[in-house]
Amino acid sequence: MQYLKIKEEILQQIESGLLTSGQKLMSERKLAEAFHTTRVTLREALSLLESEGRVYREDRRGWFISPEPLRYDPTNTTNFHNLALSQKRIPKTELLSATMVPADKQIAQLLQIAPQTEVIRIHRVRYLDERPVVLVTNYVLPERLPNLLSHDLSASLTDIYQQHYNTLYQCTHYRIRSSSLIADTAAPLRATSGCAAMYIERVNYDQHGQLLDCDLEYWRHDAVTIEAQAIRQK
Amino acid sequence: MQYLKIKEEILQQIESGLLTSGQKLMSERKLAEAFHTTRVTLREALSLLESEGRVYREDRRGWFISPEPLRYDPTNTTNFHNLALSQKRIPKTELLSATMVPADKQIAQLLQIAPQTEVIRIHRVRYLDERPVVLVTNYVLPERLPNLLSHDLSASLTDIYQQHYNTLYQCTHYRIRSSSLIADTAAPLRATSGCAAMYIERVNYDQHGQLLDCDLEYWRHDAVTIEAQAIRQK
Repeated sequence: MQYLKIKEEILQQIESGLLTSGQKLMSERKLAEAFHTTRVTLREALSLLESEGRVYREDRRGWFISPEPLRYDPTNTTNFHNLALSQKRIPKTELLSATMVPADKQIAQLLQIAPQTEVIRIHRVRYLDERPVVLVTNYVLPERLPNLLSHDLSASLTDIYQQHYNTLYQCTHYRIRSSSLIADTAAPLRATSGCAAMYIERVNYDQHGQLLDCDLEYWRHDAVTIEAQAIRQK
Repeated sequence: MQYLKIKEEILQQIESGLLTSGQKLMSERKLAEAFHTTRVTLREALSLLESEGRVYREDRRGWFISPEPLRYDPTNTTNFHNLALSQKRIPKTELLSATMVPADKQIAQLLQIAPQTEVIRIHRVRYLDERPVVLVTNYVLPERLPNLLSHDLSASLTDIYQQHYNTLYQCTHYRIRSSSLIADTAAPLRATSGCAAMYIERVNYDQHGQLLDCDLEYWRHDAVTIEAQAIRQK
């Protein structure tokens, strides 16, 4: 199959260092010419590389070589900022909005409250090395963290909770699903609709076992690897 | 947006029980007629439901309502068979092939051996309630489990290891990525190429801390949810 050969050639160029992390590829037209192939076949090769997380596409900007994914251990509660720094990446958080909203069915269930109860919703995009990689939405119980909206919410929520409310994330229930980015979740990540995503849903409890908040995270699929270790219980 | 309205209608039919788990939907043409819409718009609605894991497609067979996903806790080493039974699902394992192969670069790295070293490769497809949901490939160090190929490999490997080799999975390093099914990984799962997948890579160690095998798992993305709990280390 010709597209497999082209995929292997591009992969070799990545592994030999000819193509480097974050680098923009030539236009599809020029790439197809360079490989003496059609755009359809070239796209098959790129799609395969995309599914393996080796290249990614930004809407209307083209194809890029994927940086190493962030290694994320959900059994470790380090915040995003410190996790990125520990892996020599430059983190940035952009606040999109922070407001009171009535909880929909899903959020009400996660937070164990009645639907339509008012909760704080915080929408943020997180960047690694200037690339948007995850869209995070926190839903917070307002009575647990009064006046939360008056703080600088582009900073670490974990730090705000700890410094201003003496509250720690002690226990997290998490769920991970494979999903796709569509419309509202794609645009802030500069992704095309349908792009593969890792969806992580977490419900967080404080040091007294009380529910604090939940967060829904849509990661660009090539930007993260869940990595952990499990030891069999005797 | 019309496709969002159609998506919500289908979702309501699922949640009200009008459409039930595993049920085949009408053809796209008939569905489009029923919703007074075009096939393009209908497909957008179905794609969104697919990305959320509510419907799935089988190659050349059409669309189906997704059953509940299997809840999979990677920190728990229960085997697939018992996990499925504990969630009232009917498990089945089909052996596709079992043979000696030279380790490629990825496998050599995972098993900490030189590339081209001969290892045992076991390809299997696992079913839930007669639906193929995961393609599992184990690569086993032959000197750790001599004559493994003489056993019935459609049974649980965990059980074979324990009963015939007095060997237990004690510790597992795992990685989870979002990926897609393509060609060789799509066909055994009756998926169309490009279908979202959850990719799980595990390296397994025995009760003496010695490396035993690794396995690469491609799950149909709607068929599995990773679900676990993490407690902050003091």
